[in-house]
Amino acid sequence: MNQTAAVPNQCRRRPSIDKVQAPEAQWISVAEIIYRSKDGNVLKINIRTNKTELLMRNTTFVTFKASKVAVSPDLNYVLLTYDIKKVYRYSFLASYLIYNLHTREVHELNPPEVSDSMLQFASWGVWGQQLIYVFENNIYYKPDVKSSSLRLTSSGQDGLVFNGIPDWMYEEEVLHSPVGHWWSPSGSSLAFLTINDTLVPNMLLPRFTGALYPRGAYYPYPKVGQVNPTVKLSVVTLNGSSPTIELQPPSSLEKSEYYITMVRWATEEHVTVRWLNRAQNTSILTLCHTHTGECERKHVMTSDKWIDCQNEEPIFSKDGTKFFITLPIKHGSQGSFRHLTMMSEQHADGEVNVRHLTSGNWEVTKILAYDENLDTVYYISTENGVSQRHLYRVRTEDVFHRECLTCFLFKPHCTYYDAMLSPDLQTVLLHCAGPSIPKTTVHQIANISSFMSIDSGLEFRHLLRHKRIPRREIRIIPFNNHALRLELSFPVDFDEINQHPLLFVLDSAPGGQQVSEQFRLDWDSVLLSSDKVIVARLDGRGSGFQGQKFLQEVHKQLGVLELQDQLAALEYLVKLSYIDGNRIGVFGKAYGGFVSSLLLLSHISPFRCGVAMAPVSDWRLYASAFTERYFGFPANDGHKYQISSLLFNISTSEKQTFLILHGTADASVHFQHTAELVKLLSLHNVNYTLQIFPDEGHDITSKQYMLSSVITFFRECFHENTAVTMETGEED
Amino acid sequence: MNQTAAVPNQCRRRPSIDKVQAPEAQWISVAEIIYRSKDGNVLKINIRTNKTELLMRNTTFVTFKASKVAVSPDLNYVLLTYDIKKVYRYSFLASYLIYNLHTREVHELNPPEVSDSMLQFASWGVWGQQLIYVFENNIYYKPDVKSSSLRLTSSGQDGLVFNGIPDWMYEEEVLHSPVGHWWSPSGSSLAFLTINDTLVPNMLLPRFTGALYPRGAYYPYPKVGQVNPTVKLSVVTLNGSSPTIELQPPSSLEKSEYYITMVRWATEEHVTVRWLNRAQNTSILTLCHTHTGECERKHVMTSDKWIDCQNEEPIFSKDGTKFFITLPIKHGSQGSFRHLTMMSEQHADGEVNVRHLTSGNWEVTKILAYDENLDTVYYISTENGVSQRHLYRVRTEDVFHRECLTCFLFKPHCTYYDAMLSPDLQTVLLHCAGPSIPKTTVHQIANISSFMSIDSGLEFRHLLRHKRIPRREIRIIPFNNHALRLELSFPVDFDEINQHPLLFVLDSAPGGQQVSEQFRLDWDSVLLSSDKVIVARLDGRGSGFQGQKFLQEVHKQLGVLELQDQLAALEYLVKLSYIDGNRIGVFGKAYGGFVSSLLLLSHISPFRCGVAMAPVSDWRLYASAFTERYFGFPANDGHKYQISSLLFNISTSEKQTFLILHGTADASVHFQHTAELVKLLSLHNVNYTLQIFPDEGHDITSKQYMLSSVITFFRECFHENTAVTMETGEED
Repeated sequence: MNQTAAVPNQCRRRPSIDKVQAPEAQWISVAEIIYRSKDGNVLKINIRTNKTELLMRNTTFVTFKASKVAVSPDLNYVLLTYDIKKVYRYSFLASYLIYNLHTREVHELNPPEVSDSMLQFASWGVWGQQLIYVFENNIYYKPDVKSSSLRLTSSGQDGLVFNGIPDWMYEEEVLHSPVGHWWSPSGSSLAFLTINDTLVPNMLLPRFTGALYPRGAYYPYPKVGQVNPTVKLSVVTLNGSSPTIELQPPSSLEKSEYYITMVRWATEEHVTVRWLNRAQNTSILTLCHTHTGECERKHVMTSDKWIDCQNEEPIFSKDGTKFFITLPIKHGSQGSFRHLTMMSEQHADGEVNVRHLTSGNWEVTKILAYDENLDTVYYISTENGVSQRHLYRVRTEDVFHRECLTCFLFKPHCTYYDAMLSPDLQTVLLHCAGPSIPKTTVHQIANISSFMSIDSGLEFRHLLRHKRIPRREIRIIPFNNHALRLELSFPVDFDEINQHPLLFVLDSAPGGQQVSEQFRLDWDSVLLSSDKVIVARLDGRGSGFQGQKFLQEVHKQLGVLELQDQLAALEYLVKLSYIDGNRIGVFGKAYGGFVSSLLLLSHISPFRCGVAMAPVSDWRLYASAFTERYFGFPANDGHKYQISSLLFNISTSEKQTFLILHGTADASVHFQHTAELVKLLSLHNVNYTLQIFPDEGHDITSKQYMLSSVITFFRECFHENTAVTMETGEED
Repeated sequence: MNQTAAVPNQCRRRPSIDKVQAPEAQWISVAEIIYRSKDGNVLKINIRTNKTELLMRNTTFVTFKASKVAVSPDLNYVLLTYDIKKVYRYSFLASYLIYNLHTREVHELNPPEVSDSMLQFASWGVWGQQLIYVFENNIYYKPDVKSSSLRLTSSGQDGLVFNGIPDWMYEEEVLHSPVGHWWSPSGSSLAFLTINDTLVPNMLLPRFTGALYPRGAYYPYPKVGQVNPTVKLSVVTLNGSSPTIELQPPSSLEKSEYYITMVRWATEEHVTVRWLNRAQNTSILTLCHTHTGECERKHVMTSDKWIDCQNEEPIFSKDGTKFFITLPIKHGSQGSFRHLTMMSEQHADGEVNVRHLTSGNWEVTKILAYDENLDTVYYISTENGVSQRHLYRVRTEDVFHRECLTCFLFKPHCTYYDAMLSPDLQTVLLHCAGPSIPKTTVHQIANISSFMSIDSGLEFRHLLRHKRIPRREIRIIPFNNHALRLELSFPVDFDEINQHPLLFVLDSAPGGQQVSEQFRLDWDSVLLSSDKVIVARLDGRGSGFQGQKFLQEVHKQLGVLELQDQLAALEYLVKLSYIDGNRIGVFGKAYGGFVSSLLLLSHISPFRCGVAMAPVSDWRLYASAFTERYFGFPANDGHKYQISSLLFNISTSEKQTFLILHGTADASVHFQHTAELVKLLSLHNVNYTLQIFPDEGHDITSKQYMLSSVITFFRECFHENTAVTMETGEED
């Protein structure tokens, strides 16, 4: 269950599990890319000359037991990360080495007067050998590798005040990133968050193993309706020339609770910031002057539900007078869809002119760049199909001539793209994520059909040597005036004569997309290939990229419509001759575990078995920033929470089997959820099997064992002869 | 899994599970007994006149939601216990009401200026309305119900310093009682322990349910080799006439670590105390003068293994010059057996004269009383058979004329007695604990065969209405020069034609006795009656009441010989035509869970399935006072611990099923044991099923659910058609 790499400038939602990881590659000049090849060497490639230069051998990783690498902007050093200890979804503690690519000298990166330190973050800056790192919740700066460290903040306190890095909630639910600081374009200033958790209630993560007396750890975790951390955003000049300036929140939010959901430098003196009220229905985009700290409103959005895509970074023109974001635009009765919008100051009074550059019943998913010379915006959208992602461009003055750059590429065959433009916007790094095996190529924009391959990132071919890729089919299920998109994966040697078991795999968070043309190689492929199971994935109501209405229908009723949609899909499927209606299972993690439990525990459940991994059993126990988005503040809608708690929806069924898996140190969905659930299951005499993972978090690291448990569970459930009869006792 | 009632003056060992509880009855005068009848009324019976007086109606319990009752010495009040919150095995927090039996007035028992208090202990004293209670680890005294409370100690500190009550270790492993104070015979003084845990490492008991932010709790728990609490014993006069005196440990122990394992008032000015060094191989019995605090050695015992029966209270003559204890006496090649021994000061120089009053290859299990007029000692022994307990008496001057008072009683038919003599030693309350349904009767010593029944305590007849009692048979298995005692319980409609599944039930601690004529109504009777299972219980090496040698052979190798003995019994059993060698299961809790896991996980295991409840998976993680007794201090014998850790003994077997049950708040065997175990099982790819009981302790309170899980597990294991085939994957 991989993490999705944090992709900048995207309308980010909670990452789904099992997404294919994007390649580690970056532009370092208009013609050069640095990347790590599939055999682990760090290479620099000049895309004009096609010359490749070896920067660091893969053996260096082995020598230093390093697992990550980053090249300094001046290409003289690399930063090697070792001894990684995962903290939450993205964050980790680690030690770092600075390795001179020419002399092969190394030295450790440590705060002043500290040795063998574990840092919370470390990375190169914008130019030369600028380095930043976070230690004990304070930010340190090194102008170059030889100079001593400068401490930029002093308010950091373990578990209380975080500088430059997010706390649990900001990392997992607000920023979706381990980074809480942002470099100015020239590298002369740094914007950073200070997150204060002093008043936030602490949750215990117990520890059971590894010591005679294992200690638990408390960490701030605001549950629904509890005190949230306060946040402020400051800018510091790295040469120390001016004092640290705090950027001022919009006056309308000053006296209330808010989140800072996005920070991006627009110019060398301006930072654009998005502020979101706690109810998540008013969002204010501001442009802040870093010398005065004053923030000017650029765009205000309100909604009667919640506002999504709060991490999306606007793309600014060089002078900062014009920027591009996506905004929902109404499309007839289908509701609103997110589209590319240009905001520009046309009048002397600073009033903003809003122009929609695209429209239709599809969505712009990512804005890539603005070419000032051509007056053209590059973006990615679903215009060619909701399952697809293609690279487009549009001229702001000629919006009806949208151009798809990747739709007609003959080679590689691809329908699901991500793209990174070169600094001069003449070249693009295309990452083809499906439907076939992912591949990265470089194309001249002017001559897009010719390309060069980059052997970066994960290489699936060797994984797939002995496997044939299962056939996937997308079907549309009409239900309740909706067209539900259902994906079926068929066993390689599928035949319509036999009856096959059916496994529903649920998404782990609302707002995602399961049915797409992205390549996928999941754990369930084992069941597909060896057990002739058909796997179904549905994008029911609450899922993303099909417009705001579809996404937001679950508002205040999370779990209700999803259940109906899954059951509608099931009804459609069991009518198919090749599906065995008696052998149907369901799998879900987190939110998906909540839904899979609901499906299994409802008294008319057609499922024979189900797995809930780290299930949310009661939304009142989950994080404020997530839950309040869907349910509002609990005081007002207490009974809504009740409806959406598993703990009020249990009914018994003797024939089913139910497997619950949970790490006891899960910092996202606390083991508390499973504890409350199994107490209740016991009370109701519901049979279940529990697999705990002592001291493991939300992402189980003993994945092999975990997956084999899940696979064995479904295998037994789907096996035609294993309907174990339960004796009631009186006779043998 | 009932607790055994704490019986004074017995060689106590860790209580086994599922023992039948002794009746709540007590002598209040030479002719009067107070008891609670089976319908819940509190009655006083005059055994001379046979007149019964109702002291308190059962409805009063309901009115005050009380669950326990104690009558004041002057019979005017009762102390009602309500809102009981279990702490460890014996201790509980509760609120108390004082109820006037005449006026029916009630008032709460609270410390000064505290309301709605939860007390750690409360009980009447020796005369009148004397009351003592413990609050916030300090002892309070009330001369009568109307007077105000006097605080007797001030050093009490939550989780650090305990006055008058034991900490976890003293309660569970040393005193086997929730009481850490003792009244002088007249009620004018109190001896009490002060246990200081300041330097003892704390263990976390996490909490998962019942709150948004459940808090864990730390409590002192010395694991093997860790710092133990220090203990001192003081005497306070309750009228405040003299200062509190600390009783001095023997000089040989002054500078080393020791346990105080027994305290008993010998006379109004003397307390007898047993001191045991940390290695548990030197025990010193002293008589302490409460005015000076000086303690005189009366008997010193040393051993090359450990010394057991350290809770046994000596019985003193009125003048304190003579006392009776049990001591091991060698009996040929069979080793030593515990026998009744008289110690008396015959010489002016205080030298003690030791005389053994009994001998043989059987044991005295309890000394009851010394009749000075007849110069006779009353005791209970196994002389009539190791499975039996009978009441005996012997004259100190004529030791060859032992008299069994209960061996020849025609009615009730009984072979397993406990006894309480009246204050004048003319009458005895006999509790018949088996082999038939338990029953309490009163007998004149002079005319023992006539009796009167008391309908006190648990009444089994109504439980047994629909059940026939399974037939039990004791067999002797010769093995390794030992005669292992094996008990078989047969299904009621047993036949030798069919093959029956076999279940081994292990004891939960070494030193106990499973094979006896005590009545038993256990959870396994369900399997006996409805699944035709034969249940086997073995008293292998390490079990009690068969002499010191048999008991102590497990020294430094806990788990090794027990395994051999269980396997020897198994070998004997599978040769029987009516036992199905393919359907054998094993159940064990705590130490028994350790052994059942060993039996199941050894690579030649003949067991098809096994249950380990709260298993000890590594003795290094268990309590010092218990583990060091068997293994010594870890520094010296590190490798011995390794041998006796499950974590080094795992081998895989695909065909077996293994159920582990554990409460996550188990304060005795920490959930840590199971966490470490399942981590290792996962690593070795061993299949297991885990049932956790969130926030439950060592004794699961949701017993019904727990037992039905265990029963269902064995039922499935023993079912002839449920040998589920595990597919390896490649074909359907």
